[in-house]
Amino acid sequence: MRIHSIAIADPPLRSSYGLHAPYALRTILEIESDDGITGISETYGGEVPAQALDAIRQKVIGQNPYRLTGLLSSMVEGEGSGIDRSQTYLVPGENPLDQTTRTYAAVEVACLDLIGKSVGQPVCDLIGGRVRDQIAFSAYPFFKHAGGGGEGDDLREDEYGEVMTPETFVQEVKQMIAKYGFSSIKMKGGVLEPDLEIETVRLLYQELGAEIPLRIDPNSAWTASTSVRVGKALAEELSGGGYLEDPTAGLENMAQVRKQLLAEGIMIPLATNVAVTSFADIPRAIELDAVQIILSDHHYWGGMRQVQRLANLCKVFGIGLSMHSNSHLGISLMAMTHVAAATPHLTYACDTHYPWQSVKDEVVLGGRVPIVNGCVRIPDKSGLGVELDYDQLARGRERYEKYPYRKRDDEAEMQKHIDPLWKRSIPRW
Amino acid sequence: MRIHSIAIADPPLRSSYGLHAPYALRTILEIESDDGITGISETYGGEVPAQALDAIRQKVIGQNPYRLTGLLSSMVEGEGSGIDRSQTYLVPGENPLDQTTRTYAAVEVACLDLIGKSVGQPVCDLIGGRVRDQIAFSAYPFFKHAGGGGEGDDLREDEYGEVMTPETFVQEVKQMIAKYGFSSIKMKGGVLEPDLEIETVRLLYQELGAEIPLRIDPNSAWTASTSVRVGKALAEELSGGGYLEDPTAGLENMAQVRKQLLAEGIMIPLATNVAVTSFADIPRAIELDAVQIILSDHHYWGGMRQVQRLANLCKVFGIGLSMHSNSHLGISLMAMTHVAAATPHLTYACDTHYPWQSVKDEVVLGGRVPIVNGCVRIPDKSGLGVELDYDQLARGRERYEKYPYRKRDDEAEMQKHIDPLWKRSIPRW
Repeated sequence: MRIHSIAIADPPLRSSYGLHAPYALRTILEIESDDGITGISETYGGEVPAQALDAIRQKVIGQNPYRLTGLLSSMVEGEGSGIDRSQTYLVPGENPLDQTTRTYAAVEVACLDLIGKSVGQPVCDLIGGRVRDQIAFSAYPFFKHAGGGGEGDDLREDEYGEVMTPETFVQEVKQMIAKYGFSSIKMKGGVLEPDLEIETVRLLYQELGAEIPLRIDPNSAWTASTSVRVGKALAEELSGGGYLEDPTAGLENMAQVRKQLLAEGIMIPLATNVAVTSFADIPRAIELDAVQIILSDHHYWGGMRQVQRLANLCKVFGIGLSMHSNSHLGISLMAMTHVAAATPHLTYACDTHYPWQSVKDEVVLGGRVPIVNGCVRIPDKSGLGVELDYDQLARGRERYEKYPYRKRDDEAEMQKHIDPLWKRSIPRW
Repeated sequence: MRIHSIAIADPPLRSSYGLHAPYALRTILEIESDDGITGISETYGGEVPAQALDAIRQKVIGQNPYRLTGLLSSMVEGEGSGIDRSQTYLVPGENPLDQTTRTYAAVEVACLDLIGKSVGQPVCDLIGGRVRDQIAFSAYPFFKHAGGGGEGDDLREDEYGEVMTPETFVQEVKQMIAKYGFSSIKMKGGVLEPDLEIETVRLLYQELGAEIPLRIDPNSAWTASTSVRVGKALAEELSGGGYLEDPTAGLENMAQVRKQLLAEGIMIPLATNVAVTSFADIPRAIELDAVQIILSDHHYWGGMRQVQRLANLCKVFGIGLSMHSNSHLGISLMAMTHVAAATPHLTYACDTHYPWQSVKDEVVLGGRVPIVNGCVRIPDKSGLGVELDYDQLARGRERYEKYPYRKRDDEAEMQKHIDPLWKRSIPRW
C-alpha cells in the first residue's frame, strides 16, 4: 500500500469559496497484490486525506482485495448515519464528517482496479455491469483570473486568460466546446453580482442555442429570495434539461426556493452537492422537496457501490442524479466514468474539472484521458483502464514537497492575491 | 444455458393461500462458459418461470458473464417502476409483474456463481464483501396435515405428523429447534381462528422463553381490527425482537394497524413481503408508516445487488430488513446466505422453508446444506459454494414430468384434499 501526495497546477478559478490556489492537491493510492498486480485510485489531497489512508494501512496490508470492502464496511455503514454532513461550509476533502467514507472509497476503487486487472475485466463490469460505454461530461466553465496555475518556473499560461465578464465567459465556453465537444454546460457562479451572472447565462443561451442544457452553481452564494429572482429571470434558459445548483444554503432555504418557483409556474429543478452529501440527509430533503437532483461523487459518498445505491434510491423517489467533481487527474476521471457506466439512473451529464488540468501534471501513463464529443469512453482494458506513469507521479510528489500547500483554502488564496479583507460570506447576495 | 424444471416433495403445509401441493416446483439454471465453468442458480418453478428464462436464451448465450447483468439491466431498471406489484393475491412465482426481475435474478446469481468459480472467490465477496461469515435463519413452523409430501411410491412421512393445534405446533417448533438450533421463530398463521393462533404464540412464548424472538405471518388473513386485536393480545410476546408480518392486506390497512397499535402504546413492528414487493411500493409505504420491516428476496427483487440497494434504502429510512423464503433447495439457500452475508443492514434472522424439504430431493452435490445453531456458514469455496448433483437433478426432472403440477395453486389443493368449496378469502377473520 503506497500513498502519494501530489500537487498539480490549477488555474486561478473563482467561486463563492474564494480562489483556487496555484496548486490543487491529490492523493494517489496504490495497492499491490502479492502476485504483483497494482490497483490504483485517486482522492482528495493534502495532509488529512493522506493521513487517514495511512491510518488504516494495517487493516489493508495482507488482506484479500475481494474481502477488503466487507472488512472495512463500518467506514461507510457505521459512521455518519443521522449526522448532517453538510458541505455548505466545509469542502469535501476537508470535512471531517466524511473522512471515513472518503478513505473507504479510495480503497474500494483501488481494490476494484486490482481485481479488474487480475481478471481482465473493466471495473464497470465488476460492479453490476455497464449500461453504457461512454459517459457524457459537461463543460465546467469558471470565472477566473489570467493564467493556468503553478508557481515559479512551473508557472502555466492557459488559452482562456482572464474571464471576469459575461463576454469572456462565453468565449471560454466556446473554446471548451471546440476542444472537447461538450454538449451541456455547468457554469460556476456565485462570483459576480447576480445580475451579471444572469446576463452571462442569457448570453450563453443566445450564443449556443436552446439545445445545450445550462446549469449554474453559485455554491450557496445567494439568499432564497435572490435565488428565486435568478430562477425567474432564467426560467427559459435553465429549463431545457438544465438546473439551478445550490443557489442557497441549507435544505430549508432550498425548499423555500423550490416552493416559490413552483408557485410562479417555474419548473427548474434544484440540484445539490452540499445540502445532501450523505444518505442521512436524504429523508429530510425528500420531506421538504428541497432538491430534485443529487450530485453523486464516489470520492465522498463511500465509493462506487454507494453511488449505485444512491442512484437507486434517487430513482425510487423520483430524484435526478448528476455527478460532482473536484480538481482531479485521469485516475479519478476514469473511476467517475466507470461508476457512471454502471449506474443506470444517471440522468445528467457529469461534472468534471479535468479540462482545467494540464498534461504536464497527468500521472496516467500515455498522458491525458481523451474527452471526445464531450464523452469519455470505457476503454477495452482491465480495471480502470489506466496505469500510473511513475515519472509523472514523482514529479507531482516533488511539487507537493516544494510548495507549502497542505490543504485547500480558497479563502486564504483570495486574501493573498485579490483582497486581504475577503471573507467567504453566505449568502453574499 | 440449461434450464431444468424440477419437482420436489413438499409437506401439506397450510396458510391463508390454502394448502401446499405434494410437490413444490423449482427451476434450476445452469450457465456454462466456453472454458467449461458452470454457474448455477435456483428460482421459482413451473412453466412460466422456465419459459421466461428460455425467452432470453439468445441474450445470454455468447455473452461475457461480467457484462450480462449490465446488458439485461432494463429487466430490473426499466420495468415495474411506478407499478404496484403487490403479492397479496399473486404469489411471487406466478405474479406477471415481477417476471422480469425474477428472470434477471436467476441469471445474475448464475453469473456470479460462474464468476466466483472462475476467480476462486465466494459470491458474497464479489458483490461488496461479506460483513459476516454466517447467517442466522428462523425456524419456520406451519400448521400442517400429516405427512411429508410426495405422491405414490414417492410419498414421504415426516417427523412432525399432523400439526393443527397449539400444542402440536409447539411440539413441531421444539423438534425444529432441536434439529437445527434456531434461535428465532417465524410462525405461519392465518390458518386457525385468530384466538387459537394467539394461544399458539402464547404457548410458544411460555415454553421457549422471552429470549427467542417470535413473529407471526397470517398472510393478510385478518381485517385491520382483528390485526389490532391480535397485536394487543400479543404485545409482550411479539415485542422482543419479533414482528407482526402482513396481518392485513394493503398499505392503507397496514398503516391503520400501525397507527392503532401505537395509540395503545404497542410498538410491535409490522413486516411485509406482499404489500411492498418492489421499489415502486416504497415511497407510499414510508409516507403511511405502513411497514417497519421489509422482507427482501433476491429471487423477485431483481437479484443480489438489488437486495443490497433495498437494504441501503431501508437503512436510510429507518426500516428494518428481513428475508422472505419460498419452498427451495440448497442452491437458493446458499444464494440467500451469500447476499445476506454481503448486506450490512440485515436486522433480523432470515426466513427459510429449507427444513421442509428432504435430502431425497436435494440437487446439491453431497446432500443438504447444514444448518447449525440456526445458521448457515459461508463455506471456504468459490461461487455459491455448491455444485449440482446431476443424478439428483435428473430425479427432480423425472418427477416434474411424472406429476401434473405446473404452477403453484394452493387454493386448488385445498379444494382437492380438504374442502371442495374452499376459497381464499382475504380478510377471512
